[in-house]
Amino acid sequence: MAKTTAADQLTVLPEQGIHSHTDHHLCMPEDSRKRAARRLKIARGHLDSIVTMLENPDAYCVDVLRQLKAVQGALAGAGEVVLRGHLEAHVATAATRGDEAEIVDELMEVFKYV
Amino acid sequence: MAKTTAADQLTVLPEQGIHSHTDHHLCMPEDSRKRAARRLKIARGHLDSIVTMLENPDAYCVDVLRQLKAVQGALAGAGEVVLRGHLEAHVATAATRGDEAEIVDELMEVFKYV
Amino acid sequence: MAKTTAADQLTVLPEQGIHSHTDHHLCMPEDSRKRAARRLKIARGHLDSIVTMLENPDAYCVDVLRQLKAVQGALAGAGEVVLRGHLEAHVATAATRGDEAEIVDELMEVFKYV
Amino acid sequence: MAKTTAADQLTVLPEQGIHSHTDHHLCMPEDSRKRAARRLKIARGHLDSIVTMLENPDAYCVDVLRQLKAVQGALAGAGEVVLRGHLEAHVATAATRGDEAEIVDELMEVFKYV
Repeated sequence: MAKTTAADQLTVLPEQGIHSHTDHHLCMPEDSRKRAARRLKIARGHLDSIVTMLENPDAYCVDVLRQLKAVQGALAGAGEVVLRGHLEAHVATAATRGDEAEIVDELMEVFKYV
Repeated sequence: MAKTTAADQLTVLPEQGIHSHTDHHLCMPEDSRKRAARRLKIARGHLDSIVTMLENPDAYCVDVLRQLKAVQGALAGAGEVVLRGHLEAHVATAATRGDEAEIVDELMEVFKYV
Repeated sequence: MAKTTAADQLTVLPEQGIHSHTDHHLCMPEDSRKRAARRLKIARGHLDSIVTMLENPDAYCVDVLRQLKAVQGALAGAGEVVLRGHLEAHVATAATRGDEAEIVDELMEVFKYV
Repeated sequence: MAKTTAADQLTVLPEQGIHSHTDHHLCMPEDSRKRAARRLKIARGHLDSIVTMLENPDAYCVDVLRQLKAVQGALAGAGEVVLRGHLEAHVATAATRGDEAEIVDELMEVFKYV
């Protein structure tokens, strides 16, 4: 508990049972959560193989760059899954909850400089 | 054996012990190899924590997107380390070896669509 | 006329006077339209100066790359203005109109491979 | 002359006749200079059409985003032309001039955060 991570901020009091946006309790759609996890596990395996590659003194720079590019593509794919789920479940419905301003601000923050 | 592909270059013949790059035996500078590996291990740890995050039904999309963006930044940082080592050790010296055409072609292939 | 494509949306029938988007008549918020135009005009001026730069036989590659990077940043900034206006005016309100599926699909298409 | 731009820095004293890197006098290969200019003129025409598009109150956000993405692709393409010319003419030959450190540093600066 020494270091507070983003994951810590996600902790929900289960007895509360109500998920409001201002308390960060909008939840990810289960389908996109599972699909994103699956993709990230594949990306992690790929990343592991680059780390192994780098233990070999004969590793060649351009091969490493190519593999890194592939992993970045996989992460971008996982990001698209998460983004689509978010747009469908939370952004498209913002006006019905009345939290449009916060929803748009936090999403634009993620897009900044990308 | 005249032209090696990316896939070929990833395959190391263990009995041979020497990994060749289009027959030039260009190896990654040890310093950039070790620094890139260190950065990728950190990125892998971060990726692990996103996978764990996604096991929590209360995970919030925007938190996941933020973490993914951080990991992508870490991979980009590792890529910069590898690229700098490659430019210094292999590209800047290409004219002294006479393999400019291959060196530039394979590097441009990595940059394509980026 | 049930499904309009991107190409259709760019064509305005002048006699009709109304530009329809998948029959919802969604228009860009005036403020983001004007601010995006202003930014793009600045980017265009910058792009003009790169074209002029390239007429000089003494132009240096890295200076051109730096200027291109600046213009790309300006276009990204204009894109952020347009995206924010779109999220606020059209995406956050989608559930109140009932066109969530189309709104999300067309937005994800823009994000793809980015 | 009130504002010093990157283009100003390119000014070469014609009587000098020697182009050294430290004085920013490495010149762009003519072919890549002309091809990059051609591509940028096309991108500028495309950018013009987006500015015109934005004068229409019926402009639709996603159409603008799509067009911006196309222009950014065109700029990236021009950047690839410039980069390839630079790698061939200046980076691959750096060791023969002895300016590897500067050549790599300035190129890495362009790649940073990209």
